[in-house]
Amino acid sequence: MMANAVAHRLLHTMFRVDDLDRSIAFYTNILGMIELRREEFPEAAFTLSFLGYGGEDTHCVLELTKNHDPQAYQNGTRFGHFAVAVLDIYAAIKRCKSLGVKVTREAGPMAFASKSGQRDLIAFIEDPDGHQIELIERS
Amino acid sequence: MMANAVAHRLLHTMFRVDDLDRSIAFYTNILGMIELRREEFPEAAFTLSFLGYGGEDTHCVLELTKNHDPQAYQNGTRFGHFAVAVLDIYAAIKRCKSLGVKVTREAGPMAFASKSGQRDLIAFIEDPDGHQIELIERS
Repeated sequence: MMANAVAHRLLHTMFRVDDLDRSIAFYTNILGMIELRREEFPEAAFTLSFLGYGGEDTHCVLELTKNHDPQAYQNGTRFGHFAVAVLDIYAAIKRCKSLGVKVTREAGPMAFASKSGQRDLIAFIEDPDGHQIELIERS
Repeated sequence: MMANAVAHRLLHTMFRVDDLDRSIAFYTNILGMIELRREEFPEAAFTLSFLGYGGEDTHCVLELTKNHDPQAYQNGTRFGHFAVAVLDIYAAIKRCKSLGVKVTREAGPMAFASKSGQRDLIAFIEDPDGHQIELIERS
Protein backbone atom coordinates (compact mmCIF):
# COMPACT_ATOMS: atom_id res chain seq x y z
CA MET A 1 0.00 0.00 0.00
CA MET A 2 1.22 3.47 -0.86
CA ALA A 3 1.15 4.96 2.65
CA ASN A 4 2.49 8.28 1.42
CA ALA A 5 -0.46 8.49 -0.98
CA VAL A 6 -3.12 8.41 1.75
CA ALA A 7 -4.16 11.62 3.47
CA HIS A 8 -3.02 11.90 7.06
CA ARG A 9 -4.16 15.25 8.38
CA LEU A 10 -7.05 17.71 8.06
CA LEU A 11 -5.58 21.07 7.06
CA HIS A 12 -8.35 23.61 6.61
CA THR A 13 -11.91 24.41 5.67
CA MET A 14 -12.22 27.09 3.00
CA PHE A 15 -15.05 29.45 2.22
CA ARG A 16 -15.41 32.66 0.27
CA VAL A 17 -16.02 35.97 2.00
CA ASP A 18 -17.37 39.28 0.74
CA ASP A 19 -15.24 41.54 2.92
CA LEU A 20 -11.95 40.18 4.21
CA ASP A 21 -11.37 42.82 6.89
CA ARG A 22 -14.88 42.35 8.26
CA SER A 23 -14.47 38.56 8.39
CA ILE A 24 -11.04 38.71 10.00
CA ALA A 25 -12.40 41.12 12.64
CA PHE A 26 -15.21 38.66 13.34
CA TYR A 27 -13.01 35.57 13.63
CA THR A 28 -10.39 37.27 15.77
CA ASN A 29 -12.55 39.53 18.00
CA ILE A 30 -15.62 37.31 18.38
CA LEU A 31 -14.15 33.82 18.11
CA GLY A 32 -10.66 34.49 19.45
CA MET A 33 -8.73 33.16 16.45
CA ILE A 34 -5.33 34.40 15.32
CA GLU A 35 -4.61 35.37 11.73
CA LEU A 36 -1.73 32.99 11.04
CA ARG A 37 -0.91 33.82 7.45
CA ARG A 38 -2.07 35.91 4.54
CA GLU A 39 -1.25 35.11 0.92
CA GLU A 40 -1.75 37.57 -1.92
CA PHE A 41 -2.18 36.26 -5.45
CA PRO A 42 -2.28 39.43 -7.56
CA GLU A 43 -2.11 37.59 -10.91
CA ALA A 44 -5.07 35.39 -10.00
CA ALA A 45 -6.85 38.30 -8.24
CA PHE A 46 -7.51 36.68 -4.90
CA THR A 47 -6.26 36.90 -1.33
CA LEU A 48 -6.21 34.08 1.23
CA SER A 49 -6.27 34.48 5.00
CA PHE A 50 -5.61 31.54 7.34
CA LEU A 51 -7.02 31.78 10.86
CA GLY A 52 -7.11 29.43 13.80
CA TYR A 53 -6.14 28.55 17.33
CA GLY A 54 -2.62 27.27 16.69
CA GLY A 55 0.03 26.84 14.04
CA GLU A 56 -0.81 25.12 10.77
CA ASP A 57 1.80 22.43 11.38
CA THR A 58 -0.38 21.00 14.13
CA HIS A 59 -3.83 22.61 13.88
CA CYS A 60 -6.65 22.53 11.38
CA VAL A 61 -7.56 26.11 10.44
CA LEU A 62 -10.01 28.23 8.45
CA GLU A 63 -9.05 29.54 5.04
CA LEU A 64 -10.92 32.63 3.90
CA THR A 65 -10.84 33.39 0.19
CA LYS A 66 -11.46 36.92 -1.07
CA ASN A 67 -11.84 37.16 -4.81
CA HIS A 68 -10.93 40.70 -5.78
CA ASP A 69 -13.75 40.93 -8.30
CA PRO A 70 -17.00 41.03 -6.33
CA GLN A 71 -19.16 37.97 -6.90
CA ALA A 72 -22.51 36.79 -5.60
CA TYR A 73 -22.19 33.51 -3.71
CA GLN A 74 -24.90 31.05 -2.74
CA ASN A 75 -24.99 29.65 0.79
CA GLY A 76 -26.00 26.08 -0.09
CA THR A 77 -27.71 23.61 2.21
CA ARG A 78 -25.18 20.83 1.70
CA PHE A 79 -22.59 22.53 3.87
CA GLY A 80 -23.89 22.92 7.41
CA HIS A 81 -21.58 24.69 9.80
CA PHE A 82 -18.31 24.50 11.57
CA ALA A 83 -18.02 24.15 15.31
CA VAL A 84 -15.80 25.70 17.94
CA ALA A 85 -15.33 24.80 21.61
CA VAL A 86 -16.11 27.21 24.46
CA LEU A 87 -15.70 26.53 28.16
CA ASP A 88 -18.97 28.23 29.16
CA ILE A 89 -21.71 28.28 26.54
CA TYR A 90 -23.98 30.70 28.42
CA ALA A 91 -21.19 33.20 29.03
CA ALA A 92 -20.11 32.83 25.39
CA ILE A 93 -23.55 33.69 24.03
CA LYS A 94 -23.94 36.57 26.46
CA ARG A 95 -20.62 37.93 25.20
CA CYS A 96 -21.62 37.42 21.54
CA LYS A 97 -24.83 39.36 22.10
CA SER A 98 -23.01 42.18 23.87
CA LEU A 99 -20.79 42.44 20.77
CA GLY A 100 -23.78 42.57 18.41
CA VAL A 101 -23.39 39.08 16.94
CA LYS A 102 -26.50 37.43 15.51
CA VAL A 103 -27.46 34.40 17.62
CA THR A 104 -29.53 31.96 15.56
CA ARG A 105 -29.95 29.33 18.30
CA GLU A 106 -29.88 30.18 21.98
CA ALA A 107 -27.49 28.40 24.36
CA GLY A 108 -28.81 25.21 25.90
CA PRO A 109 -28.80 21.43 25.66
CA MET A 110 -29.47 19.75 22.32
CA ALA A 111 -33.20 19.21 21.78
CA PHE A 112 -32.77 15.44 21.96
CA ALA A 113 -30.15 13.14 23.44
CA SER A 114 -28.52 10.59 21.18
CA LYS A 115 -29.04 6.88 21.81
CA SER A 116 -25.69 6.82 23.61
CA GLY A 117 -26.85 9.63 25.88
CA GLN A 118 -24.79 12.38 24.23
CA ARG A 119 -26.50 15.74 24.72
CA ASP A 120 -24.11 18.63 24.24
CA LEU A 121 -24.68 22.18 25.40
CA ILE A 122 -24.72 24.14 22.16
CA ALA A 123 -25.63 27.42 20.48
CA PHE A 124 -25.41 28.83 16.96
CA ILE A 125 -24.23 32.21 15.78
CA GLU A 126 -23.90 33.65 12.28
CA ASP A 127 -20.78 35.04 10.69
CA PRO A 128 -20.83 38.19 8.47
CA ASP A 129 -21.49 36.08 5.34
CA GLY A 130 -24.36 34.11 6.84
CA HIS A 131 -22.41 30.99 7.82
CA GLN A 132 -23.70 29.11 10.81
CA ILE A 133 -21.15 28.53 13.55
CA GLU A 134 -21.90 26.05 16.29
CA LEU A 135 -20.55 26.75 19.75
CA ILE A 136 -20.20 23.63 21.89
CA GLU A 137 -19.34 23.62 25.58
CA ARG A 138 -16.22 21.51 25.69
CA SER A 139 -12.71 21.78 27.14
CA MET B 1 -12.50 39.63 29.85
CA MET B 2 -14.52 36.44 30.07
CA ALA B 3 -11.81 34.06 28.85
CA ASN B 4 -14.09 31.06 29.28
CA ALA B 5 -16.55 32.74 26.89
CA VAL B 6 -14.15 32.90 23.96
CA ALA B 7 -13.79 29.93 21.64
CA HIS B 8 -10.50 28.10 21.95
CA ARG B 9 -10.56 25.16 19.57
CA LEU B 10 -11.92 24.18 16.16
CA LEU B 11 -14.01 21.03 16.62
CA HIS B 12 -15.51 20.00 13.31
CA THR B 13 -16.87 20.90 9.90
CA MET B 14 -20.36 19.56 9.25
CA PHE B 15 -22.07 18.77 5.99
CA ARG B 16 -25.09 16.74 4.95
CA VAL B 17 -24.74 13.52 3.01
CA ASP B 18 -27.19 11.54 0.91
CA ASP B 19 -25.89 8.07 1.75
CA LEU B 20 -24.02 7.65 5.03
CA ASP B 21 -22.47 4.25 4.22
CA ARG B 22 -21.21 5.51 0.87
CA SER B 23 -19.68 8.62 2.46
CA ILE B 24 -18.05 6.70 5.30
CA ALA B 25 -16.56 4.26 2.79
CA PHE B 26 -15.15 7.20 0.84
CA TYR B 27 -13.64 8.99 3.83
CA THR B 28 -12.14 5.86 5.33
CA ASN B 29 -11.00 3.98 2.18
CA ILE B 30 -9.99 6.90 -0.01
CA LEU B 31 -8.89 9.49 2.53
CA GLY B 32 -7.70 7.19 5.31
CA MET B 33 -9.90 8.61 8.07
CA ILE B 34 -11.23 6.65 11.02
CA GLU B 35 -14.88 6.71 12.04
CA LEU B 36 -14.49 7.94 15.61
CA ARG B 37 -18.08 8.06 16.77
CA ARG B 38 -21.63 7.64 15.54
CA GLU B 39 -24.63 9.21 17.21
CA GLU B 40 -28.21 8.17 16.46
CA PHE B 41 -31.03 10.62 17.12
CA PRO B 42 -34.16 8.57 16.38
CA GLU B 43 -36.59 11.19 17.74
CA ALA B 44 -35.10 13.89 15.54
CA ALA B 45 -34.63 11.45 12.62
CA PHE B 46 -30.97 12.01 11.93
CA THR B 47 -27.65 10.22 12.38
CA LEU B 48 -24.24 11.80 12.86
CA SER B 49 -20.90 10.28 12.01
CA PHE B 50 -17.61 11.83 13.14
CA LEU B 51 -14.50 10.98 11.13
CA GLY B 52 -10.92 12.13 11.27
CA TYR B 53 -7.26 11.40 11.81
CA GLY B 54 -7.20 11.42 15.59
CA GLY B 55 -9.38 11.67 18.69
CA GLU B 56 -11.81 14.55 19.06
CA ASP B 57 -10.10 15.74 22.25
CA THR B 58 -7.15 16.89 20.19
CA HIS B 59 -8.15 16.85 16.51
CA CYS B 60 -10.59 18.77 14.37
CA VAL B 61 -12.84 16.28 12.54
CA LEU B 62 -15.59 15.98 9.94
CA GLU B 63 -19.20 15.58 11.04
CA LEU B 64 -21.48 13.94 8.48
CA THR B 65 -25.21 14.45 8.99
CA LYS B 66 -27.69 12.01 7.47
CA ASN B 67 -31.29 13.16 7.74
CA HIS B 68 -33.44 10.04 7.60
CA ASP B 69 -36.01 11.69 5.35
CA PRO B 70 -34.38 12.15 1.95
CA GLN B 71 -33.90 15.80 1.04
CA ALA B 72 -32.44 17.64 -1.91
CA TYR B 73 -29.45 19.77 -0.91
CA GLN B 74 -27.81 22.60 -2.80
CA ASN B 75 -24.01 22.71 -3.07
CA GLY B 76 -23.56 26.46 -2.67
CA THR B 77 -20.62 28.52 -3.89
CA ARG B 78 -19.94 30.18 -0.54
CA PHE B 79 -18.40 27.04 0.92
CA GLY B 80 -15.34 26.04 -1.05
CA HIS B 81 -13.65 22.88 0.10
CA PHE B 82 -11.77 21.27 2.87
CA ALA B 83 -8.15 20.25 2.57
CA VAL B 84 -6.15 17.24 3.65
CA ALA B 85 -2.39 16.66 3.70
CA VAL B 86 -0.67 13.94 1.71
CA LEU B 87 3.04 13.19 1.62
CA ASP B 88 3.17 12.57 -2.15
CA ILE B 89 0.56 14.38 -4.24
CA TYR B 90 1.30 12.49 -7.46
CA ALA B 91 1.09 9.08 -5.79
CA ALA B 92 -2.08 10.20 -4.01
CA ILE B 93 -3.85 11.15 -7.24
CA LYS B 94 -2.66 8.00 -8.96
CA ARG B 95 -4.15 6.01 -6.09
CA CYS B 96 -7.43 7.99 -6.19
CA LYS B 97 -7.78 7.30 -9.91
CA SER B 98 -7.07 3.60 -9.45
CA LEU B 99 -9.93 3.55 -6.93
CA GLY B 100 -12.33 5.29 -9.30
CA VAL B 101 -12.39 8.68 -7.56
CA LYS B 102 -13.28 11.71 -9.65
CA VAL B 103 -10.26 14.02 -9.94
CA THR B 104 -11.39 17.59 -10.69
CA ARG B 105 -7.91 19.15 -10.73
CA GLU B 106 -4.78 17.21 -11.60
CA ALA B 107 -1.81 17.09 -9.24
CA GLY B 108 0.73 19.85 -9.71
CA PRO B 109 1.89 23.23 -8.45
CA MET B 110 -0.64 26.02 -7.94
CA ALA B 111 -1.13 28.04 -11.12
CA PHE B 112 0.43 31.12 -9.51
CA ALA B 113 2.79 31.67 -6.61
CA SER B 114 1.73 34.03 -3.85
CA LYS B 115 3.65 37.25 -3.25
CA SER B 116 5.52 35.48 -0.46
CA GLY B 117 6.54 32.72 -2.85
CA GLN B 118 4.10 30.11 -1.52
CA ARG B 119 3.22 27.65 -4.29
CA ASP B 120 1.84 24.41 -2.93
CA LEU B 121 1.59 21.15 -4.81
CA ILE B 122 -2.14 20.50 -4.89
CA ALA B 123 -4.95 18.51 -6.49
CA PHE B 124 -8.72 18.36 -6.11
CA ILE B 125 -10.99 15.35 -5.89
CA GLU B 126 -14.76 15.11 -5.43
CA ASP B 127 -16.59 13.27 -2.68
CA PRO B 128 -19.79 11.26 -3.35
CA ASP B 129 -21.96 14.35 -2.72
CA GLY B 130 -20.00 16.63 -5.01
CA HIS B 131 -17.85 18.32 -2.37
CA GLN B 132 -14.44 19.48 -3.49
CA ILE B 133 -11.55 18.15 -1.43
CA GLU B 134 -8.14 19.71 -1.83
CA LEU B 135 -5.11 17.47 -1.42
CA ILE B 136 -1.96 19.37 -0.48
CA GLU B 137 1.52 17.88 -0.34
CA ARG B 138 2.56 18.54 3.23
CA SER B 139 3.97 16.56 6.11
